[in-house]
Amino acid sequence: MDCIFCDIIEGKSSAEVIYEDDKIISFLDIRPVNFGHALVIPKKHYKDFVSVPEGELSCLIRGTKILSKAIMDSLMPDGFNIVVNNGSAAGQSVFHFHFHIIPRFFNDDFKFRPNLKNYESDSMKEFADKIRASITI
Amino acid sequence: MDCIFCDIIEGKSSAEVIYEDDKIISFLDIRPVNFGHALVIPKKHYKDFVSVPEGELSCLIRGTKILSKAIMDSLMPDGFNIVVNNGSAAGQSVFHFHFHIIPRFFNDDFKFRPNLKNYESDSMKEFADKIRASITI
Repeated sequence: MDCIFCDIIEGKSSAEVIYEDDKIISFLDIRPVNFGHALVIPKKHYKDFVSVPEGELSCLIRGTKILSKAIMDSLMPDGFNIVVNNGSAAGQSVFHFHFHIIPRFFNDDFKFRPNLKNYESDSMKEFADKIRASITI
Repeated sequence: MDCIFCDIIEGKSSAEVIYEDDKIISFLDIRPVNFGHALVIPKKHYKDFVSVPEGELSCLIRGTKILSKAIMDSLMPDGFNIVVNNGSAAGQSVFHFHFHIIPRFFNDDFKFRPNLKNYESDSMKEFADKIRASITI
């Protein structure tokens, strides 16, 4: 299976690695939204967020916290976003799960376009009912 | 301290709650990017991502996985985003930490505008060096 992130983990492709432990690795995105934009990924290949087991998710979110603090302390942006794209409709382009950490600055040009919707009358409850009925723990 | 999310947790404000356990609660965003857009928050008040202790982060990411699967199974979007806004420069408006789960559809109108940058010559290594020097575990 061709996977550019597995190639990085195996040392077959180079990357600017900023953190590594037994479960996860983090490196800079080569096409950053802002400089210092980092990715945090599991060493085992899982195609997306819903495929990652709970134990590894904990390691990944712990690493994402460590790295977002390091990015704040070193690059001193005004804030940051953590973003997961699950599925191509959501913007996922590499199908090896990754958290994005995106340093942000007031007035940078990374704009969401939140054309926010309004629920009509009882439709919010209807959506909630559907979701509640599908929860599996 | 005024906090709309603490008010929801304490039952002083209403919300369309879709999940609750001893550590976390999830409810629908009243101004959704797409219908079914949910928030997952800790019951204890932490102002942002970097303030949340590791144990609670694990509970939150576990809950975010449970709920993103329920949203996929019930509403059948084409994908979803998980988003954290840390700091007002990153779009944070309620200073009680929350994960957003945003159902996504091909050709919906939630567009990032990823005006991606390029690193010049050695600058990628310079950014990575700065971050690596600031990592505290």
